[in-house]
Amino acid sequence: MTAGSPHSPSSQAESFGDRLAGLVAARASQIVLGLDPDPGHLWPAALDAAGPAELLPAERAAQAVAGHCRLAIEAAGEECVAVKLQVACFERLGAPGWTALSEVAQSAREAGLLVIADAKRGDIGVTAAAYAQAFLGETPTPFGPVPGLGVDAMTVNPLLGVDSIEPLLAAARARGAGLLVLVRTSNPGAADVQELSLASSGTVSDAVAGMVAELGVPGIGPAGLSDVGAVVGATAPGRVAALRALMPQTIFLLPGVGPQGARVEDLAPAFSPGPAAGLIAASRGIVNAYEQAGGEPAAAARAEAARLRELAWSLRA
Amino acid sequence: MTAGSPHSPSSQAESFGDRLAGLVAARASQIVLGLDPDPGHLWPAALDAAGPAELLPAERAAQAVAGHCRLAIEAAGEECVAVKLQVACFERLGAPGWTALSEVAQSAREAGLLVIADAKRGDIGVTAAAYAQAFLGETPTPFGPVPGLGVDAMTVNPLLGVDSIEPLLAAARARGAGLLVLVRTSNPGAADVQELSLASSGTVSDAVAGMVAELGVPGIGPAGLSDVGAVVGATAPGRVAALRALMPQTIFLLPGVGPQGARVEDLAPAFSPGPAAGLIAASRGIVNAYEQAGGEPAAAARAEAARLRELAWSLRA
Repeated sequence: MTAGSPHSPSSQAESFGDRLAGLVAARASQIVLGLDPDPGHLWPAALDAAGPAELLPAERAAQAVAGHCRLAIEAAGEECVAVKLQVACFERLGAPGWTALSEVAQSAREAGLLVIADAKRGDIGVTAAAYAQAFLGETPTPFGPVPGLGVDAMTVNPLLGVDSIEPLLAAARARGAGLLVLVRTSNPGAADVQELSLASSGTVSDAVAGMVAELGVPGIGPAGLSDVGAVVGATAPGRVAALRALMPQTIFLLPGVGPQGARVEDLAPAFSPGPAAGLIAASRGIVNAYEQAGGEPAAAARAEAARLRELAWSLRA
Repeated sequence: MTAGSPHSPSSQAESFGDRLAGLVAARASQIVLGLDPDPGHLWPAALDAAGPAELLPAERAAQAVAGHCRLAIEAAGEECVAVKLQVACFERLGAPGWTALSEVAQSAREAGLLVIADAKRGDIGVTAAAYAQAFLGETPTPFGPVPGLGVDAMTVNPLLGVDSIEPLLAAARARGAGLLVLVRTSNPGAADVQELSLASSGTVSDAVAGMVAELGVPGIGPAGLSDVGAVVGATAPGRVAALRALMPQTIFLLPGVGPQGARVEDLAPAFSPGPAAGLIAASRGIVNAYEQAGGEPAAAARAEAARLRELAWSLRA
């Protein structure tokens, strides 16, 4: 973020799209390292971070999870532009898990990476404002302000409509952060609701795409990218192209490459507005690459992230 | 929950609908005490729970929030059948907030109340399974199992389709808990996506209602109520009646009474399958009743909960 007056962050903060475009160019990467740590499936070296046996299982597991994520960032972070932290995987460890989430976000920032909270939150306005405090801002209390996670972007569920997104967007925009709204997810069940055909025209996803494009217009900076992005599953490449037509200035976060079966080669339409218009999220495909490739987890993760980076970079318009 | 073999909870646990029906009858209440604590708007007596000034603001605020919720449960709990904990309001206080959430859930259980986590989670299957561990089950780790919050029900966002609900449902059903799926929310923006007209017939909400009814069939117990409930905003009473026709055995959680403007008197169709088929969620309307009614917060909260309880109880079929 550029230096701005602390009194008027909204008029001074560089927009999310501009920040992302700068970082994508500098790192020549559109890869997002997804971290969805399973305490039963960590890199062996991470178990050393668990701390002494006197601690509670939640505390030891959370420290091991944080250690695992730090190792993955050290190994593959240089090939990436951001991390995507799957909040569920930290939340299941309770309070120590939330501490680990905060620590991992800090490790990613120190590695020069943007931090995306994959939280998929969506709620009525007053509650959306509370989630905005949790992830993007801070909470005023009689005891002093409580800082939130301070992420650069978070995923948002749009089912509750525009008034559920606006409080999150206001908080994001004020600090040069962004939202990534679920438009068309990568799972097979996505079609159940998102691809229902509407009486007017198109599907639910198309209608949400229109909402996303419109909400993002005031946040478009010099790089031409909006601060309201879209989650578009890479598993349905035909939809990627169709949704790009409806959201020409929207950053697409593209999950589904790797174990879910999508291929980077099929995603060229995502990048048509520019190199930073498509972010390829890979989680288990990178972190668990050693199970396919053999060797040390760190070396395999770095090699797979580098392979994805080069493949995606070759597709840019 | 009835005593069951620890080895086969799914075949032994009393169903959520049966548990709820029994408790609604025993307490003659269909009122859900909503707790969405704002650290800047707590009952004055709760500030005494904040602990010493040496603690971090987040720790003091979380302890005050937990104290506030305990006081509200002590004051109004006897008039209610459940609490609904707004997860966002705890999450914004970080790790101490999560500890407070767990403590408040325990206080509610000790008061004989069911615990509903208003989490509105929804994610692809592997992540939904992680949320199920966080709220309904436990997480296996190399250091021992980490228990989740252990709630009786949680709210779920259906935008990602059936395969995003199934892992949560499996975890809920195994322990006699339930889900409450967002079908038609109480906010003005609900219409933006949920009430889009479909090419086939009805709206997105109607399609989700069909999904909810079908998913819940295997969980219908002797009381005739399914374990997949629906969140249906009390702010659109016409929709309550129409959705009841599509979901004849579904428990409705009805938010929107009080500051959002809905009236209990308009909700009779929700109760047509039986007294436990409609749960009226009131948060600020109860907890902040003293601001309208005057007097002590606790007395005003109890009086308002009693008023709502009697009003709703008079509507049962």
